[in-house]
Amino acid sequence: MRTTTENAQLALLLEVSGTPKPGNVDRHREYDDLRFEHFLSGAVCARDGLRLAAGGAEVGESFRRAVAGMSQQSGGNTQFGALLLLTPLVRASAAQDLNPDGTRRVVSETTVEDAVAFYKAFEYVDVAVPEPPEGMGPLDVRRGAAAESALRERGLTLADVMERSRDHDGIAAEWVDGYPRTFEAADRIESESGPVTDRAAAAYLDLLTEEVDTFVATQHDPETAAEIRRRAAAVQAGEEDAEAFAAELVERNINPGTTADLVAGGLFVALERGLEV
Amino acid sequence: MRTTTENAQLALLLEVSGTPKPGNVDRHREYDDLRFEHFLSGAVCARDGLRLAAGGAEVGESFRRAVAGMSQQSGGNTQFGALLLLTPLVRASAAQDLNPDGTRRVVSETTVEDAVAFYKAFEYVDVAVPEPPEGMGPLDVRRGAAAESALRERGLTLADVMERSRDHDGIAAEWVDGYPRTFEAADRIESESGPVTDRAAAAYLDLLTEEVDTFVATQHDPETAAEIRRRAAAVQAGEEDAEAFAAELVERNINPGTTADLVAGGLFVALERGLEV
Repeated sequence: MRTTTENAQLALLLEVSGTPKPGNVDRHREYDDLRFEHFLSGAVCARDGLRLAAGGAEVGESFRRAVAGMSQQSGGNTQFGALLLLTPLVRASAAQDLNPDGTRRVVSETTVEDAVAFYKAFEYVDVAVPEPPEGMGPLDVRRGAAAESALRERGLTLADVMERSRDHDGIAAEWVDGYPRTFEAADRIESESGPVTDRAAAAYLDLLTEEVDTFVATQHDPETAAEIRRRAAAVQAGEEDAEAFAAELVERNINPGTTADLVAGGLFVALERGLEV
Repeated sequence: MRTTTENAQLALLLEVSGTPKPGNVDRHREYDDLRFEHFLSGAVCARDGLRLAAGGAEVGESFRRAVAGMSQQSGGNTQFGALLLLTPLVRASAAQDLNPDGTRRVVSETTVEDAVAFYKAFEYVDVAVPEPPEGMGPLDVRRGAAAESALRERGLTLADVMERSRDHDGIAAEWVDGYPRTFEAADRIESESGPVTDRAAAAYLDLLTEEVDTFVATQHDPETAAEIRRRAAAVQAGEEDAEAFAAELVERNINPGTTADLVAGGLFVALERGLEV
């Protein structure tokens, strides 16, 4: 039996190995400066943080440690979003509570300390984030540890921070809504058969057609995100070729990373529920 | 900085991700019942055993634990040989002694207990091994723990066992000879540039041309092993296409697994010496 920590690491590796996963690094496609091997290292070295969460430690500190380990490679941000999505799931699973209400419990128990640790995690890698709204400058995540006093003054927990980001960040939305898309992805992965990496790729395409990828909206613009969603649906309808679509997105540097993160989360849930590999 | 344990796991993952690696599972090729995902799980779950070795524990027990973890997936034998090659290297590196003499010291210190643990490791997965020579039936590795009394009666250490296998097993030869091919592979990987997985694939082809793969000789016959070596040289000379050769070997189920194991060992040495990923 794999441990919860091992399943979290394996979920990260299975996610990046599914292909085609249009726009993201996968087994067949990579960027010159962000390669498959960087994701391998990220998954191996995220372990200490994931293990903290599996042992019941605070979500914020566990996440910060996971990101510190993940960033021990030269590709930059490989799995920041996936780890953010995974940490409460790992914590819930460790409490034998891996279900929507279980994740809500974990999230609702986060504190200001968790928020401070979350901000510190941004110091390890560059993460694409939107400009903060008017008056929110002191809480810009890019400030990292420098935002600590603003967080403490306003008494913001990590759940509060996620609540404020939910409309423009698909991971924050999962955090505050009980992980609906993640659990749906797990159900789909479990309901299919064949190689798990193929099922991961199929789940990715499904998710991509259902909602716009918030990372693409941030990295590019809402129009691009809408285009990607529409064209993923065309791929599913057999009107576009998946491989050609994948090649084009790499060419245009469009990475639906949030959708990939949801697949990693779905894989973790499925593995914890007994999915055979 | 990655730990020694993390580098050992990463070496396993980088090895399987190099492509083309004619005949073996890689990022682009897999068998229906032995897939890329099985190697991912094997690398993640071998950790506890590798960590024992990195902490200075006995080589035999560390290896047995690594194999027990590795085998927690449904594909069967993914990294038995690679772990056997890696364990003394990990132990030597933990002693700040990762060089040919250092591996000789680790090997020379193995005991009968190490041999017993090594035999037990064969109980976790089916490993292709040659028929034992006349009179060696009681020491057939396929007997697993049942060979314990024969090992104890004859007072055989794990180094003794390897010495007896060196002529027909390329991993045993590395054990008793100070890992010459492994360190050479590390040198080559370090001397090139570009993606590490590409360098791993290049090192694999080099090694394949230099000596016959003992796993192929065992799994098939010496003639097949000789053919593979000759044709690998033709690929390097530009007379054969690497991808077509790779496809043919998968079709014929010819897996130069020992050569792949040497690449994993070379990657580990290079990573420990500071190779950037």
